[in-house]
Amino acid sequence: MAAIEMLPRLRERYRLDFVIVNGENAAGGFGITEQILEELLDAGADVVTTGNHVWDQREALVFIERYDQLLRPLNFPPGTPGKGCGLFKARNGQEVLVINAMGRVFMNDLDCPFRAVDSELEACGLARGADAIFLDFHAEATSEKEAMGHFIDGRASCMVGTHTHVPTADHQILDGGTAYISDAGMCGDYNSVLGMEKEEPISRFLSRIPSSRFGPARGEATVCGVALETDDATGLARRFAPVRLGGRLARAEPEFWLSE
Amino acid sequence: MAAIEMLPRLRERYRLDFVIVNGENAAGGFGITEQILEELLDAGADVVTTGNHVWDQREALVFIERYDQLLRPLNFPPGTPGKGCGLFKARNGQEVLVINAMGRVFMNDLDCPFRAVDSELEACGLARGADAIFLDFHAEATSEKEAMGHFIDGRASCMVGTHTHVPTADHQILDGGTAYISDAGMCGDYNSVLGMEKEEPISRFLSRIPSSRFGPARGEATVCGVALETDDATGLARRFAPVRLGGRLARAEPEFWLSE
Amino acid sequence: MAAIEMLPRLRERYRLDFVIVNGENAAGGFGITEQILEELLDAGADVVTTGNHVWDQREALVFIERYDQLLRPLNFPPGTPGKGCGLFKARNGQEVLVINAMGRVFMNDLDCPFRAVDSELEACGLARGADAIFLDFHAEATSEKEAMGHFIDGRASCMVGTHTHVPTADHQILDGGTAYISDAGMCGDYNSVLGMEKEEPISRFLSRIPSSRFGPARGEATVCGVALETDDATGLARRFAPVRLGGRLARAEPEFWLSE
Amino acid sequence: MAAIEMLPRLRERYRLDFVIVNGENAAGGFGITEQILEELLDAGADVVTTGNHVWDQREALVFIERYDQLLRPLNFPPGTPGKGCGLFKARNGQEVLVINAMGRVFMNDLDCPFRAVDSELEACGLARGADAIFLDFHAEATSEKEAMGHFIDGRASCMVGTHTHVPTADHQILDGGTAYISDAGMCGDYNSVLGMEKEEPISRFLSRIPSSRFGPARGEATVCGVALETDDATGLARRFAPVRLGGRLARAEPEFWLSE
Ligand SMILES: [Fe+2]
Ligand SMILES: [Fe+2]
Ligand SMILES: [Fe+2]
Ligand SMILES: [Fe+2]
Ligand SMILES: [Fe+2]
Ligand SMILES: [Fe+2]
Ligand SMILES: [Fe+2]
Ligand SMILES: [Fe+2]
Repeated sequence: MAAIEMLPRLRERYRLDFVIVNGENAAGGFGITEQILEELLDAGADVVTTGNHVWDQREALVFIERYDQLLRPLNFPPGTPGKGCGLFKARNGQEVLVINAMGRVFMNDLDCPFRAVDSELEACGLARGADAIFLDFHAEATSEKEAMGHFIDGRASCMVGTHTHVPTADHQILDGGTAYISDAGMCGDYNSVLGMEKEEPISRFLSRIPSSRFGPARGEATVCGVALETDDATGLARRFAPVRLGGRLARAEPEFWLSE
Repeated sequence: MAAIEMLPRLRERYRLDFVIVNGENAAGGFGITEQILEELLDAGADVVTTGNHVWDQREALVFIERYDQLLRPLNFPPGTPGKGCGLFKARNGQEVLVINAMGRVFMNDLDCPFRAVDSELEACGLARGADAIFLDFHAEATSEKEAMGHFIDGRASCMVGTHTHVPTADHQILDGGTAYISDAGMCGDYNSVLGMEKEEPISRFLSRIPSSRFGPARGEATVCGVALETDDATGLARRFAPVRLGGRLARAEPEFWLSE
Repeated sequence: MAAIEMLPRLRERYRLDFVIVNGENAAGGFGITEQILEELLDAGADVVTTGNHVWDQREALVFIERYDQLLRPLNFPPGTPGKGCGLFKARNGQEVLVINAMGRVFMNDLDCPFRAVDSELEACGLARGADAIFLDFHAEATSEKEAMGHFIDGRASCMVGTHTHVPTADHQILDGGTAYISDAGMCGDYNSVLGMEKEEPISRFLSRIPSSRFGPARGEATVCGVALETDDATGLARRFAPVRLGGRLARAEPEFWLSE
Repeated sequence: MAAIEMLPRLRERYRLDFVIVNGENAAGGFGITEQILEELLDAGADVVTTGNHVWDQREALVFIERYDQLLRPLNFPPGTPGKGCGLFKARNGQEVLVINAMGRVFMNDLDCPFRAVDSELEACGLARGADAIFLDFHAEATSEKEAMGHFIDGRASCMVGTHTHVPTADHQILDGGTAYISDAGMCGDYNSVLGMEKEEPISRFLSRIPSSRFGPARGEATVCGVALETDDATGLARRFAPVRLGGRLARAEPEFWLSE
């Protein structure tokens, strides 16, 4: 997997203190296995977030209980295996609160993600237990994503949207100091439909009949993500930039780290 | 409106031969009036495309019949006022086929956009009636947008997705020569929810109750779009780049036009 | 309104101890006004339940605080005006717990109705505070309705589904003793689309364009509902039958009350 | 399967000239096999209609081409195997046009069912090629079903809705002479969720996690359907009544046939 191969180099190149990877499609597009989780952690991920595909590999319902570093959406029903947020120690010694929540618009029927996130931010805030706070908001609609960004603006270091598999170009630091991007995109081949070989998805749109299984596209991957630097005093965002390396998309790097 | 103010300067700065604007939210976020359409055309738009909000101002049902330059989605039901595509003369004398279609995933119940677009491309193809072909695919889901892009790859100059109001960073020229971007984004204030003041949308997500009307956010606008250069012989894409000017988003310009 | 005219006669004819009316479309199809609520209460309703249309008349957001007898769905967000359940005294002196909840499948994004209802049933159960318990589950999908029925079977006297505006013929007493019907239907003219004049809805399905407002169909109404008799000792259902009177639908009456 | 066992007796008891069965869930809840289709035809079905589950058993994509009596929704994409309507000879010698169409509200993305049905009715109408015309409209929303009923009122003998698996009690002959019911219900055990054992569906609503497969409920089935008598001269409906036999639902029979 592209992210696994690239991570060690990226950690070194950018001297990263903390790395978060969304792994909901890590197993050939469908969920995550324990082995892949181990590989991601070995490659340098500190936390692996997920989304609607988290249980595609049913073993995840079991092994998630053994890995604090694996999160599933916070607003899943009470009693769901695993946890939706956690406090983690970064390499620089800072405490990082990572929250994984899921949107409802055009998605599953879940309890309110706004209230769920709010409740975590009340329990552990910037300069009140956490040196940095990161939200992976796994959602479809840009309206819900932007609303969530503004909802937590000033209370978290960063919100990164996921789920559409396409990076957006609206990265910005909101007025309250929270870095925001609607979608980080996927790590995969962008000559595809959502990272999967394009023939079968196109065929289904035309015929409404599945004719074969979805398989991951095998072209060169683009590793997509964001680079964030937080203020040590406030925990808010100082610098924020997209990362897009390899494959077909326009290259993007956090220049501010390279020039130093 | 930001696009209207900026267009004359952009036409000159980039020496544009043909300009397409999506105007479905031109009237304060809801549809388009005849007056605004006139202003857009005066400012230099050659064609104005739309989407699900096209009839928000009901007068559009009437005046669309008088303006060839105003398109509504092609796959609206037979009998719908207006047209979904047209052949237009560019300033350089080329014939440009512009198609406006709408997706179905998480959208309205419409007839198949793939078949509708296919039928237009069969009737008038590159080097068979059109020097360039442009599709505004107004859709929500990235899966449907990417599938459409690949579906017309090699048969059109460019597909630009619209509707999410957020620009994507996946602009590329597909293998067959068709320029593609999942979403062009909106022209408006990105300190907002979809261009609207953020308080009311946030409040509705939390309370599920409308408490006031949506109003457009009044901060500085970012004009978002794409720049396309086609090959005179084939009509396929030669160069393709995002444009983001003003406001809060990271500036992007088609360097290839400025350096010449 | 048909229900208002008919209620006094029905109370007398069947010697009813307690009457519940869903009033979400009482105001010409859209919500409920204080005046109509008063009329319903005067006509003999003990409790008025609602659903997704509850706030169509915005005054309801205010006056609901003054009427214990008006319920809105229980699983609306915390902070929503009004209440989702209440304990009411029947004419025979019994305490009746009435719960109003709303489904999520094909409906609004709300918190889990199963957990919300469960929590009320835990707080006040049959023979533990309530002599009878009635749930109006306002939902679209028969899957969610049937699942809710079985979920509360043995813990409530009755679940009546609402929202589709069409009575179902699946009334039964479930194995645990809870009376169940997927939908009670509406009180209105069944020569219509959901009680509204049929021309505009048909036109919208064909054209996808609103051409006029919806207005209620004015033909003779069928009053639709159910008749329930509970066991004084257990609070569970003893007899359960549909009621359909007047208008175009096949007449149905609770024979067991008339023969006594 | 309940319908297969019951059909021969029903054909005789009511002296039926023509029998239509919806078989989309005939194979343990998921689609239909060739063997089950054969059994249905042997048991006395003249035509078997389907719906969104038609291809659950993939063999149906192949064998449907060999059976004129098996219909899939008319408004599936062009090129879909099988047909959406057909003209069949009844035992009394009359020509019966049977149409199977599928709704779009809360269902799949398909082309307009209203236009598709209209086109068939234009091609072959009552007293213009067909002695009777029957539409199985497989749809979720009562709004779309009622709109379709009125849309074809006077042009078909009967529209029966299917898909919710719950019979409705709104059977009537519309003003133009077309018999109408929103849903015929299923043939199966009504101590269930849509005919499936109830534990797993309830569990999924609560946990949002599949924990086992759906299996059909094994209690006594109720055979649900409708009885229609058409006018020989006009092809319109003369008498129309629900049929519900066996199992947990209130028994219903077409009295008009028994008293003769
Ligand atoms: Fe994903
Ligand atoms: Fe996802
Ligand atoms: Fe828009
Ligand atoms: Fe739109
Ligand atoms: Fe209603
Ligand atoms: Fe409703
Ligand atoms: Fe179905
Ligand atoms: Fe079915």
